[in-house]
Amino acid sequence: MVDTEGHPAPEEMDLRTILNALSDPLRYQIVQELLDLPEATERTCFSFGFAISKSTLSHHFRTLREAGLVQQVNRGNSRKAHLRRADLDARFPGLLDLVRHNPAPFAPGSTAALSQEA
Amino acid sequence: MVDTEGHPAPEEMDLRTILNALSDPLRYQIVQELLDLPEATERTCFSFGFAISKSTLSHHFRTLREAGLVQQVNRGNSRKAHLRRADLDARFPGLLDLVRHNPAPFAPGSTAALSQEA
Repeated sequence: MVDTEGHPAPEEMDLRTILNALSDPLRYQIVQELLDLPEATERTCFSFGFAISKSTLSHHFRTLREAGLVQQVNRGNSRKAHLRRADLDARFPGLLDLVRHNPAPFAPGSTAALSQEA
Repeated sequence: MVDTEGHPAPEEMDLRTILNALSDPLRYQIVQELLDLPEATERTCFSFGFAISKSTLSHHFRTLREAGLVQQVNRGNSRKAHLRRADLDARFPGLLDLVRHNPAPFAPGSTAALSQEA
């Protein structure tokens, strides 16, 4: 059952919803960065350094959360996200490997993209 | 180089564009049906039996073609499409397996969906 925060249970995850979430360059970059970190590493939304508004950032994280890609947890004053790696590997084997093996250029507006341009 | 019909060369294919093409239920079903057929089987757009307008159908096939998922070829009076299986397997290993192993419910408006409801 989808919880009160909008996280679907593994059996509720829909592949097309996940593909749609990953089709956006910024969301793809978030998943890619989380994949490069040790499993269960938590990051705040702001730590990705995108030069976008707070509401746009929240929208992207909501899309990732509702698709089942990330789990968001409140930690004191901050809200942190981690990749639902085990759930995704069990439900859609090969999906995360596809992202892992296809690094994309940094999303426009990310600090990584800006520092590459400088 | 993208050809005059909008087919990208394998090295021009972009995974996010492909994920976006597959995130639509109707387009996902087309790819899934082509995957179930012997390699290089050609189908006309109409053979899928979707109860949608010709222009909407053309839009969906253009999206599939421009992403690199299908190749469309003129055969006398008809235009046929086949899945670019070898190109996709070489460029994005695991992508088609993901679709193959995750059959989706038939897209709304397809004759298959209508006959299931009857």
